[in-house]
Amino acid sequence: MNFASILFILGKLIEIEGLLFTAPTFVAVIYGEREGFSYFALALICFITGYLITKKKPEKQTYYAKEGFIAVSLGWILMSVVGSLPFIITGEIPRFIDALFETISGFTTTGSSILSDVEALSHCSLFWRSFTHWIGGMGVFVFLLAVLPMTGAQNMHLMRSESPGPDVGKLVPKLGDSAKILYSIYFGMTLIQIAILLFTGMPVFDTLTLTFGTAGTGGFGIKNSSIADYTYIQQLVISIFMILFGVNFNFYFFLLIRRSVKEALKMEEVKVYLAIIAVSTAAIMFNSRHLFNGLSDSFIKAFFQVGSIITTTGYGTTDFDTWPAFSKTILVILMFVGACAGSTGGGFKVSRIIILIKSYLRDLSSFIHPRLVKNIYMDGRRIKEETVKGAVGYLVAYVMIIVLSFLVISLDGFDLETNFTAVMATVNNIGPGLAGVGPSKNFNAFSDLSKAVLSFDMLAGRLELYPILLLVTPGTWRKK
Amino acid sequence: MNFASILFILGKLIEIEGLLFTAPTFVAVIYGEREGFSYFALALICFITGYLITKKKPEKQTYYAKEGFIAVSLGWILMSVVGSLPFIITGEIPRFIDALFETISGFTTTGSSILSDVEALSHCSLFWRSFTHWIGGMGVFVFLLAVLPMTGAQNMHLMRSESPGPDVGKLVPKLGDSAKILYSIYFGMTLIQIAILLFTGMPVFDTLTLTFGTAGTGGFGIKNSSIADYTYIQQLVISIFMILFGVNFNFYFFLLIRRSVKEALKMEEVKVYLAIIAVSTAAIMFNSRHLFNGLSDSFIKAFFQVGSIITTTGYGTTDFDTWPAFSKTILVILMFVGACAGSTGGGFKVSRIIILIKSYLRDLSSFIHPRLVKNIYMDGRRIKEETVKGAVGYLVAYVMIIVLSFLVISLDGFDLETNFTAVMATVNNIGPGLAGVGPSKNFNAFSDLSKAVLSFDMLAGRLELYPILLLVTPGTWRKK
Repeated sequence: MNFASILFILGKLIEIEGLLFTAPTFVAVIYGEREGFSYFALALICFITGYLITKKKPEKQTYYAKEGFIAVSLGWILMSVVGSLPFIITGEIPRFIDALFETISGFTTTGSSILSDVEALSHCSLFWRSFTHWIGGMGVFVFLLAVLPMTGAQNMHLMRSESPGPDVGKLVPKLGDSAKILYSIYFGMTLIQIAILLFTGMPVFDTLTLTFGTAGTGGFGIKNSSIADYTYIQQLVISIFMILFGVNFNFYFFLLIRRSVKEALKMEEVKVYLAIIAVSTAAIMFNSRHLFNGLSDSFIKAFFQVGSIITTTGYGTTDFDTWPAFSKTILVILMFVGACAGSTGGGFKVSRIIILIKSYLRDLSSFIHPRLVKNIYMDGRRIKEETVKGAVGYLVAYVMIIVLSFLVISLDGFDLETNFTAVMATVNNIGPGLAGVGPSKNFNAFSDLSKAVLSFDMLAGRLELYPILLLVTPGTWRKK
Repeated sequence: MNFASILFILGKLIEIEGLLFTAPTFVAVIYGEREGFSYFALALICFITGYLITKKKPEKQTYYAKEGFIAVSLGWILMSVVGSLPFIITGEIPRFIDALFETISGFTTTGSSILSDVEALSHCSLFWRSFTHWIGGMGVFVFLLAVLPMTGAQNMHLMRSESPGPDVGKLVPKLGDSAKILYSIYFGMTLIQIAILLFTGMPVFDTLTLTFGTAGTGGFGIKNSSIADYTYIQQLVISIFMILFGVNFNFYFFLLIRRSVKEALKMEEVKVYLAIIAVSTAAIMFNSRHLFNGLSDSFIKAFFQVGSIITTTGYGTTDFDTWPAFSKTILVILMFVGACAGSTGGGFKVSRIIILIKSYLRDLSSFIHPRLVKNIYMDGRRIKEETVKGAVGYLVAYVMIIVLSFLVISLDGFDLETNFTAVMATVNNIGPGLAGVGPSKNFNAFSDLSKAVLSFDMLAGRLELYPILLLVTPGTWRKK
């Protein structure tokens, strides 16, 4: 294992986190909050530490699969530990495990919280909490690849471990250019959402924080009522942008940079994703209509919640734990489905489900026509058997993590619905679950052990299992 | 599709069911019950109908994969419809969908019931209800293969679709001999259990019915309290036999017929299965000990329930729905695990889980050593990639069925724990679930639609998904 390379990139990460801490420092200055000193001090310490570590470049700076995966998972843990320090120092979340849970929840764009009263936080901490969503949404290593002068095809592994999806490919031949394009789209869409929300009359602070939560598909709000107290228009804008950020970014690449509507519209994943949203919204709208003031109110609520859950954002405009069983079941299934690959959303990913269903249909048809060898196609192109195998392997690892986490957190003695949806909400990076972790509740009642397990699940979900699983596999650290 | 072959074997099936109806007729004679007339009439009608259908042998009598699967799934449905008639005619279960649910639950060895008072049934109907478990346990097609003079390697598909497991193989070169050996072991073990239970002083009627339920890993009892009112010794005997019938029958074949202890002890699946039982029993025994009179009582209860759930029998000696969350979670996970392949038990099967875990570990290690091609071994022999692919494909189909069923039955508006465990309990052929379908409850409250869906799940689970899924796939019936 090339430890020098790993140390170097971790140093860069700390340096960047130092820079990022200046944002909440500015917020503190504007609002005259003394919590800003903690952010300022941490900004300095991180920047200097990172600078010192990365002063000397390692001779050979390439990341093979193993190094790439380990660097990314260690990087995310380090970033979360450092990111949790302001909450502890300011005393706003005094216990380490709680602060870590909240920060991991932020960076992984989960949005599960242990806080019962978010409105008690200072503005700078609220800002930092939402800002972690934006940072984690597109990923820090993707950002590093965009700004660092790195060459070598092997560095692909860094990007691969942080970008969601069964088949991560480069958009353009040069890796750094791909990363730059992704960040430009992300940044551009964020700016558009900010402009529209300001135009609807939303205050600047709310606009910024809520846009961070939408763009990263995170879900941390700044009010105890999440999004319920904003206007219908503002809720609709947020609904639409959640769904837009859950679309595979290749779609925007085809549309905006290659200017090929044809290629964009060929993407099966995007079509299926939008179809699932439409059908689920319609089903919930009718099933839950007795709870709301007419069909249009029911539509707004259903559309918002479907968008929020399938994109794994987790904002709420209503307590969906009180909805009828059928509507709640749809939400639980959407928790599992997740957003598109190559988006900022989490979950199992629509494209993996398409691949699995196609591979299932192929299995069935092989019983009918045993001698026919069939390939699987998506977007008109043949899918490599490697990718199919990857998707089913992913399902196995995913089920294993869910089952084991479900077992361990059941030691706390809560009911099975609470436990199951708590695991689903964290491993899929959603935020709220049902029952004891429903939208009007929080995760604070869990034991420290359960909080640790759920934090692990959030990281595993965000990094698509393997980087984090490799980290805890003894074989990774064994010398040959 | 060779319809003549399919019709022929369905005729044979009806003929056999006619013969089987004579058993409850005898019981009715002994107890002087007028319900016996229904069984007698049906015995005659079935035997004659079957005889007439099979009078002329089809010219070409081979079953390729498609014919085999379709014959088996149609056969199971036909057998269940006919088997439900006595309940309807005697008026003991007057509604068709209820009687069908109960009979499918019997043949598939599930043991889920829509009856709130089983003690109200006549002796002959109680006998028939338990007898369906014994018939379904080893399977009727396996029986047909044992008694019909059939040749041709293709007929293997008939056995394959009815025998559980990822890699069904013949024990001996001739298929009919394999079937005979399996039935001999099954019959022998049934006789031993009957002898031991009689020796403990259990009445003859109880002994026969409960042994049928144990041998087939079914779970229908003849008392409303299931097994709770029998002595500790009798409960222990039933616990042990449930576990023995959940062992891969190859184990007994190696031990008793090949007389090779070495080969028998090589079977990883059996070792893992017993280890899971030991660990789960110990965990529940300690976690739930406050509910019972000391550790020994706690052990008896935990051991019985673990054995009952992992083998997918479903008998109960206590209302485990009142157990702590950790214990209940273990039971839910055991519902998924299931018994060994090649046993009478259902579920996902221990061997499939072993294969999936090994394939997951191989995936992980391929990240560490990308150029190493690794094979998967079980019982010291290399597993074909085909079998690995089959196990993951099975997981995909299994998850799909669970998710869709979970969604449809949620329309009835029960809570998510009830719905989820109802699906788990039926698709894994267990019997009771938790909450609204817990051991002290029954499935009667569900709508007809849900009963139909859950009946489908029981059949799909018993026949290991594909035969039933093929039946409802349009492609199966399309002409080339």
